[in-house]
Amino acid sequence: MQRFINDPDDIVDETVRGFVKAHGDLVRQHPENARVVVAQGAPVAGKVGIVTGGGSGHEPAFIGYTGRNMVDAVAVGELFSSPTAKSFLDAIRAADGGSGVCVLYGNYAGDNMNVKMAARMAAKEGIEVLTVVANDDICSAPPEERDKRRGVAGEILMWKIGGAKAAQGASVREVQAAAQKALDATRSVGVGLAPCTLPANGKPNFEIPAGRMEIGIGHHGEPGREVVDLASADGVADEMLRIVLDDHDLGAGDEVCVLVSGLGATPVNELYVLYNRIESQLSERRIRVHKPFVGNYFTSLEMMGATLTVMKLDEDLKALLAAEAASPGLGVSA
Amino acid sequence: MQRFINDPDDIVDETVRGFVKAHGDLVRQHPENARVVVAQGAPVAGKVGIVTGGGSGHEPAFIGYTGRNMVDAVAVGELFSSPTAKSFLDAIRAADGGSGVCVLYGNYAGDNMNVKMAARMAAKEGIEVLTVVANDDICSAPPEERDKRRGVAGEILMWKIGGAKAAQGASVREVQAAAQKALDATRSVGVGLAPCTLPANGKPNFEIPAGRMEIGIGHHGEPGREVVDLASADGVADEMLRIVLDDHDLGAGDEVCVLVSGLGATPVNELYVLYNRIESQLSERRIRVHKPFVGNYFTSLEMMGATLTVMKLDEDLKALLAAEAASPGLGVSA
Repeated sequence: MQRFINDPDDIVDETVRGFVKAHGDLVRQHPENARVVVAQGAPVAGKVGIVTGGGSGHEPAFIGYTGRNMVDAVAVGELFSSPTAKSFLDAIRAADGGSGVCVLYGNYAGDNMNVKMAARMAAKEGIEVLTVVANDDICSAPPEERDKRRGVAGEILMWKIGGAKAAQGASVREVQAAAQKALDATRSVGVGLAPCTLPANGKPNFEIPAGRMEIGIGHHGEPGREVVDLASADGVADEMLRIVLDDHDLGAGDEVCVLVSGLGATPVNELYVLYNRIESQLSERRIRVHKPFVGNYFTSLEMMGATLTVMKLDEDLKALLAAEAASPGLGVSA
Repeated sequence: MQRFINDPDDIVDETVRGFVKAHGDLVRQHPENARVVVAQGAPVAGKVGIVTGGGSGHEPAFIGYTGRNMVDAVAVGELFSSPTAKSFLDAIRAADGGSGVCVLYGNYAGDNMNVKMAARMAAKEGIEVLTVVANDDICSAPPEERDKRRGVAGEILMWKIGGAKAAQGASVREVQAAAQKALDATRSVGVGLAPCTLPANGKPNFEIPAGRMEIGIGHHGEPGREVVDLASADGVADEMLRIVLDDHDLGAGDEVCVLVSGLGATPVNELYVLYNRIESQLSERRIRVHKPFVGNYFTSLEMMGATLTVMKLDEDLKALLAAEAASPGLGVSA
């Protein structure tokens, strides 16, 4: 295992310490919980707090989206594991400015359980907590079971929209509605080319044979829709787009936000090769990319592969997307 | 080879096309040369132009540092190969606002030859061209042959400082002097854990046995100082720092900018683990990190490993580092 690690048990704590040192202008560590990262300046009195959380190993997700007009506090889990209910609770408390908190997180069993528990405890303390559960990953369940789908890189757009809405002074119900609207307008699909290795295990967490690719793979290597021969970059882009368009209400004249993320070890230039084709194919269908994001936005350690996320825009979402925000993982200039 | 490619011969053109589509707010393609990327708004009349260039496969370097108060035009080479003299010339022309151009590039044979040729041709057209040749990579030559050292991630800090100085309205000689000063204050070292594969070759460009690491490796897999047993993350951080401190004039009370970059496939969280140790060790020596950058700033396709770059700061460099800038690879808010 060719990796920079000390004791595998210390990876997450060391990651968080290095992260808050590197981005001290935007974030700080929770004074009493080493597994909570809080935005500088949070909580803001009167503003709805935005909270998320999830397993580590997806950096910049989740901690990297903490910042100004983005996420106020993040609960940090072990590699590929849910944060504890206690960490979600501490994140909720740290984000609460007296006007309630929205927890915007991904649809995984551990996260669901721990967020629910934390929300109940926070409610007892008088904090109003609403949630939005991201389920943008198309291939993780059929359309009729959309509530079983997992959350993936579409969460980043949900945080951006929810964070912008909260910054405008909206109520906790309005923030929840905006984040839910962003999510409902968003679909994602992943393609895996090579697995990753959790240091404590020391061996790959799944296999993809050379010359093959896994369509619809999850962020932790959850099985996808099918394993097929590795296609050309254009072939992969077309297949990802086909899956998104088959599941989404998109047509000529629509405007979208497109996010192409690498899963970790795929060279950055290849993400641009994919995006070049995706944009061309959308353009041929007269679907305009209003706002693109291309880079390593939501990774899975050193997995090879990429994800495509498409959010259908209206004027409301466009304005929230364009609102100023600053976080280590994503920034929008004023 | 588990990669997203079409024809290997088309990778660079497709990368550039995807890149300018993704970052059209900051950059554009040169209208007549597909291998030149130009900042939106460049050239700025009266401002000294900043040009760089280099091989592809290091994204976000080099194209990703094109933008406002950064690099005005970038010449783009094939994967791991110098751009042509013609592309450097077109970049110089595109960056020239009538006050001269500084070409700030790395010390590689092909780049040296092609920049010199382009500068001569530009001079004939009446454009004053000065150069700074980056040689921050400690292990590529001994101290007495510093002019033989290669340029690596320290180039990013040279571009930031040169770009800020040019934005202040400085003369071409003043911009050259500021970039040279930044470079003289900067040292880098790389550690490789696993090789990368050029798609046209189809096999790794060098070997590092499992359980070993190459100290001082170059950005194209150039041999380092030695291949030794893979150390812990803290051990690697300490060794990188030892190499930098042995070669650099740094002591208690100094302030530095630290840039830790992944080489491509190393998980992002491990860069934070390295930085956590580096910062602690500098702090113990009473050397203060005034400005940290941690992320994938200068990669080598899917190589595994990391580089450490340290720039010694004075008030002048601190002010230039803090000046507002915007590029896909690096931004500083006003």
